[in-house]
Amino acid sequence: MSKPFRLHRARLETLVDGVFAIAMTILVLELKVPELIDPRSANELMSALAHHGSVIGAYFFSFGMLAVFWIWHHRLAATLHEIDLSLLVCAIALLAMVCFFPFATALLGRYPTNVSALLVYVSVLGLIILLQTLFFRIAIRHRMILDTILKKEVLAAHAKNVRGCAIFCLACIPTALRLNIYAAIGCGILGGLLVWRARGISRS
Amino acid sequence: MSKPFRLHRARLETLVDGVFAIAMTILVLELKVPELIDPRSANELMSALAHHGSVIGAYFFSFGMLAVFWIWHHRLAATLHEIDLSLLVCAIALLAMVCFFPFATALLGRYPTNVSALLVYVSVLGLIILLQTLFFRIAIRHRMILDTILKKEVLAAHAKNVRGCAIFCLACIPTALRLNIYAAIGCGILGGLLVWRARGISRS
Amino acid sequence: MSKPFRLHRARLETLVDGVFAIAMTILVLELKVPELIDPRSANELMSALAHHGSVIGAYFFSFGMLAVFWIWHHRLAATLHEIDLSLLVCAIALLAMVCFFPFATALLGRYPTNVSALLVYVSVLGLIILLQTLFFRIAIRHRMILDTILKKEVLAAHAKNVRGCAIFCLACIPTALRLNIYAAIGCGILGGLLVWRARGISRS
Amino acid sequence: MSKPFRLHRARLETLVDGVFAIAMTILVLELKVPELIDPRSANELMSALAHHGSVIGAYFFSFGMLAVFWIWHHRLAATLHEIDLSLLVCAIALLAMVCFFPFATALLGRYPTNVSALLVYVSVLGLIILLQTLFFRIAIRHRMILDTILKKEVLAAHAKNVRGCAIFCLACIPTALRLNIYAAIGCGILGGLLVWRARGISRS
Repeated sequence: MSKPFRLHRARLETLVDGVFAIAMTILVLELKVPELIDPRSANELMSALAHHGSVIGAYFFSFGMLAVFWIWHHRLAATLHEIDLSLLVCAIALLAMVCFFPFATALLGRYPTNVSALLVYVSVLGLIILLQTLFFRIAIRHRMILDTILKKEVLAAHAKNVRGCAIFCLACIPTALRLNIYAAIGCGILGGLLVWRARGISRS
Repeated sequence: MSKPFRLHRARLETLVDGVFAIAMTILVLELKVPELIDPRSANELMSALAHHGSVIGAYFFSFGMLAVFWIWHHRLAATLHEIDLSLLVCAIALLAMVCFFPFATALLGRYPTNVSALLVYVSVLGLIILLQTLFFRIAIRHRMILDTILKKEVLAAHAKNVRGCAIFCLACIPTALRLNIYAAIGCGILGGLLVWRARGISRS
Repeated sequence: MSKPFRLHRARLETLVDGVFAIAMTILVLELKVPELIDPRSANELMSALAHHGSVIGAYFFSFGMLAVFWIWHHRLAATLHEIDLSLLVCAIALLAMVCFFPFATALLGRYPTNVSALLVYVSVLGLIILLQTLFFRIAIRHRMILDTILKKEVLAAHAKNVRGCAIFCLACIPTALRLNIYAAIGCGILGGLLVWRARGISRS
Repeated sequence: MSKPFRLHRARLETLVDGVFAIAMTILVLELKVPELIDPRSANELMSALAHHGSVIGAYFFSFGMLAVFWIWHHRLAATLHEIDLSLLVCAIALLAMVCFFPFATALLGRYPTNVSALLVYVSVLGLIILLQTLFFRIAIRHRMILDTILKKEVLAAHAKNVRGCAIFCLACIPTALRLNIYAAIGCGILGGLLVWRARGISRS
């Protein structure tokens, strides 16, 4: 055990699958059965559910996002042969954010018109995307990628990740505008830089 | 990674098992310990539990339904060799419905005499059945079925799925009648069409 | 798929592991953070926790029981080569009881002096033990046991299960006495019959 | 089945992964969406979240601790070839503590200035560390370690575990001081003894 730290990939994948499955299912715990004055009134229940429409909408949107992140993570992880300590720390940070996501969803579902709730939600989303990109970048740097995968394909995948970050930054501009103009400009500049970086990676 | 999207079947099955296991267990979270005036009164507790009988009944019925869906999904998934993007999207939508199911159960358990609650519950059930049938249909269309399985068997399984949809439609007629007569007629016609379609598939 | 129903053992084991892991963890959700008048008072918190001692005790006892059932199930399941429909139905009923167990624990933890709460708890325990024994009995009847296991060992395991049921019945007598004398006598007779049956199995 | 009790390692690892994944995710259930007077006020939500800062901090810290324990457990478990009964009991006790951990976190997050809450939290942490060390010690005693692992490495790992216990004891001194001086001295002495023991193990 004085050897450098290595973890078998299958172990991490079981934990990742477990955490994603639970985070996806826990989202629904935020949906509360509404209290009705007349328990038999179909209209009252329907309008109560429609009133909670933003929570239900946030539920399905967040479920979809988690599913996308799960698929993305597995496509990246499938290219690795082993996990070293930095990769593991990065993956754990990612999972912490994934587990935090139901809370951010509940905040946004409860206060859909509140800028702070939107900010927390978008930050968690952004951190997840950032950590996924970082995860793959560390894997490339530490030569953890399987030999059977062409270098060109690895770089293409990395460029795609960076482009994903760029798209997220640009998509955040409307949200940032609700905060103030400087945040929006910052998002725009960051997005532009990332687009430029992604182009650099795919050319090299 | 410019290759067409493919996911290993085992990956999806782990997520499916996780989500089903959690959704089944989360059903029980809707059962609340009743508040008693006299904590030592055995009769009061029994009558409180009997009063919550509809919730407990809804719990066991929903648990059984989820178990049936889980077995059904695995029997279908066992015939696939790989998962492509459309199949994955269909499976994710199915899982979203499965995770939503405990909420629908809680609604129905809380308001057993409310038509809207019944409607939400039946819709979620219907969507799960529909998505399962669609899942297998896409698999057939995209030639994802294992070569070791005879074409006749595949068609028989598909016909069985469509027949399941038909039975569900016909079983919905009493519920639809509580809404209005047109919904009931619609259910009847849809059920009839599906029976006819199932017969067509098993003959071809 | 017109072949008799068969499910791969590994599939069921994943679901069983998932359900047990979640039921064990959900037990803790019944432990509520007590409300304190003075948030800094160490004594008040300690006495509040001591007051909730029965809940915490019920938690650890139930956790231990679930762990025992999990080990027991896997030792039985490890002797099977396949799962047929009756075994699957039996296993699903077992899982439904396992998922219901946290609720029964919460009832007992909340009302430790209430006979009805004890009755519900003991009934769920009894059903789990019964279903495990039934599970193995069906497996023997339907010849699902692996050929590598000696018939003598299989019978010894079955006798052990029946003896477990007998011990449970006898251990229930004090609880049944709190209900009425006839229930206690019934438990005693049933326990005696099961002891006698277990002896019969191990002799054959 | 009259053979000595043996459990396949993979079975235990699935349960461990499941329990850890759920305990990590359940931590977030303690984070409650704050109630706002003005639902659109961004400042009010931010200050409410900042007010709950200790809960959010406790969440991330506890998530990290669970991740560390999970990695630690798997590194130890990877050296075993089988699980006997004592190891299993030790692992189950460890899992009971892991499942109890979200409750201890909720207590500390709710009452961060309360000595009793800190005491419960630190005790659970300490028990987890102790049980891990015990787990590996039993494995060494019962010769469950894989033959491919050098005796020197096994002892180094054990010494590392004992040193972990020592560091924990020494790190507890400030907490113990808040209780009373004798507890602090006890922690110091225990820590010293463990450091000395760890040195003894690594020398032998």
